[in-house]
Amino acid sequence: MYTAEIITIGDEILIGQIVDTNSAWMAVRLNLAGVKVNKITSVSDRAEAIRAALSEAEKGSDMVLLTGGLGPTNDDITKKVLADYFGSTRMTVHEPSLKFIETRFATRGIRMNESNRRQAEVPDCCTVIPNKCGTAPGMWFEKGKTVFVSMPGVPSEMMEMLPDVLALLRQKTVLPDICHKTLMTYGIPESELAEKIRDWENSLPQETALAYLPNIETGVKLRLTSYAPNGKVLVEEQFEKLSAILGNYAYGYEPDTLESVLGKLLLEKGVTLATAESCTGGRIAHRITSVPGCSAYFKGGIVAYSNEIKAGVLGVNPADIGKYGAVSSEVAMQMAEGARRVLNADYAVSTTGVAGPEGGTLDKPVGLCWFGIAGPDGTHTFSRNFIGDRAGNIAAASSVALNALRLKL
Amino acid sequence: MYTAEIITIGDEILIGQIVDTNSAWMAVRLNLAGVKVNKITSVSDRAEAIRAALSEAEKGSDMVLLTGGLGPTNDDITKKVLADYFGSTRMTVHEPSLKFIETRFATRGIRMNESNRRQAEVPDCCTVIPNKCGTAPGMWFEKGKTVFVSMPGVPSEMMEMLPDVLALLRQKTVLPDICHKTLMTYGIPESELAEKIRDWENSLPQETALAYLPNIETGVKLRLTSYAPNGKVLVEEQFEKLSAILGNYAYGYEPDTLESVLGKLLLEKGVTLATAESCTGGRIAHRITSVPGCSAYFKGGIVAYSNEIKAGVLGVNPADIGKYGAVSSEVAMQMAEGARRVLNADYAVSTTGVAGPEGGTLDKPVGLCWFGIAGPDGTHTFSRNFIGDRAGNIAAASSVALNALRLKL
Repeated sequence: MYTAEIITIGDEILIGQIVDTNSAWMAVRLNLAGVKVNKITSVSDRAEAIRAALSEAEKGSDMVLLTGGLGPTNDDITKKVLADYFGSTRMTVHEPSLKFIETRFATRGIRMNESNRRQAEVPDCCTVIPNKCGTAPGMWFEKGKTVFVSMPGVPSEMMEMLPDVLALLRQKTVLPDICHKTLMTYGIPESELAEKIRDWENSLPQETALAYLPNIETGVKLRLTSYAPNGKVLVEEQFEKLSAILGNYAYGYEPDTLESVLGKLLLEKGVTLATAESCTGGRIAHRITSVPGCSAYFKGGIVAYSNEIKAGVLGVNPADIGKYGAVSSEVAMQMAEGARRVLNADYAVSTTGVAGPEGGTLDKPVGLCWFGIAGPDGTHTFSRNFIGDRAGNIAAASSVALNALRLKL
Repeated sequence: MYTAEIITIGDEILIGQIVDTNSAWMAVRLNLAGVKVNKITSVSDRAEAIRAALSEAEKGSDMVLLTGGLGPTNDDITKKVLADYFGSTRMTVHEPSLKFIETRFATRGIRMNESNRRQAEVPDCCTVIPNKCGTAPGMWFEKGKTVFVSMPGVPSEMMEMLPDVLALLRQKTVLPDICHKTLMTYGIPESELAEKIRDWENSLPQETALAYLPNIETGVKLRLTSYAPNGKVLVEEQFEKLSAILGNYAYGYEPDTLESVLGKLLLEKGVTLATAESCTGGRIAHRITSVPGCSAYFKGGIVAYSNEIKAGVLGVNPADIGKYGAVSSEVAMQMAEGARRVLNADYAVSTTGVAGPEGGTLDKPVGLCWFGIAGPDGTHTFSRNFIGDRAGNIAAASSVALNALRLKL
């Protein structure tokens, strides 16, 4: 098995100011390419920390991928540390990178400064991987049997560069097959799911591994991994059996999401959708519109945060808001029906609830949310009590709404 | 300096299926408590990988914080590995945890199974940190001078538990001061910013460190760290000088966001806001409503994804959509004015653009977005060309809109 370690460099990670999303993105592509990621490490911008991480990684992995610390500013020292580590005696200007940087600045009409120019310098012992959408070039080093690649920390630049890194790796190494596939479930808690599928899980063949991945927005994901040569077929067969056990709890395979599956259903049936959101504040519409091509089925949405909008735009009866409260079955129903009518859609979903942290009462605690689903055959409503914080309640409520629409269709 | 290493356990991290957000959250709290995070490591669910990480971390840090691998399912083996590592001879049932788990299941009317019950078992050599919102208890071990704490990987459970871990640590150790403060900027690229503040940066006193953190949604953040005893005063003084240099580019200090700063401005002025979103699909409304208390100034929004809704609900002239196209200054203007009128708000913002990946033309490429800002003194429009993917363009456009509103106010 060809193995890799990912090292992300930057104090901003160690003080928790940014979440390291690069590692997960790289890990997916490395696994797909047959490279097993052993370890992910985040270290500080200090030279000794970077050096220690390089030498530790060199012991355990065939390949070491670094991101970060290549910016134009003074706190970025990775290039210098790498030059020392690999015994480079001098820095050379990589002319194609310099040209690219110059053109880039010229096109945008931004003045180029000395620190931008220095970004085209690389240690003379490296192979340059061009940066197609940024200023810091990637660098490929070899030391003994170990390959080291340094890439920029800006996600879009790293994402553009990694395929070229893997292409170069494939020229030098034959990589094996690893097969991962992930079934998506919604509406069943992890421990209940584990019991439901216990017999299936216990009968899994060797060289496979199952993992449970609970997530507030996507539901529990089940990832099956095979290291066998016929891995793909084996995983498909097992998931066919599993889908039969899970029925409607299963809604697809990664990268399917509740919103993408819902979109496919709407497209297939040739029907349209609208939203009327109070407590979820646009989150449902945002998730629906994060799917490319959604304009074919999504008419639009109304974020009816105030009662005035619920009444004035969606046509909810103000007397009912007074009588039942904004967070009620009656209001959820009228919101869904109003959105369906005003936005001229076949289906509509509504939410009205108490996202928190303030606004809860004894009857209507923080986390209570009413949902309405309106369609050609009428409207139904239901409620849920969420127990998270504001962001968690908004996320969970948006998933419940999307899942209810999926089951309705 | 009291130091810590964070170890997150789980194959789902190494194959990139989940992004490790726990580490960043913990790192913030540890730093605030005066604990310096040396390193963050993610390792697999295999026993030998966990053992190697424990022994490596023991060499370099005073405290080792682990999350993950404590679930009820078969792939979770952390507890067993810890028992072996610390030489525990037997597992004991922690009665308060068992009672808590039983009550939890009873309240929810869910049947408890054997694997749930086993979650209350802990190695006899640990101190239990109770889990207030989940089933796996936290465990505190000491070995020589090093403290090891194992916590659940579910973010909400870990978040509830960490303060108790830090309280226990403070009983045993005196922790020093580290001061971080982060200035938020928007609308100026990183390298331009670096030049603008070069003199200020070069005059910074010793024992301070400055870092540039570019982010598509928040803009470039500037983090200043002081390890000096009078750190807080020093950082305040330096940032006062810096704010004067940056003027309107600076919009606040972390945890301020464009949406929270905008909210404060709206509250102060006692005015209300509405949104009319096409390409951003509800993202702006979602960001505004992610701020607690936003109902005081946010009337609501309309996600006008189809031309029919732009015309029918927002009152955009269909002839103008035909003549200028949906992505145009004219339509952005009428959308903003329509939202202001229909949603009865003092200010309104609109977006209409091509988020991608499809839908671009020669005149109106993917990434083009028109914005409208309507207020009591009239409406103005402007456009931007974004160069990211769909998610990036939506994120960037929502930030530009929020920033334009901030500057308007």
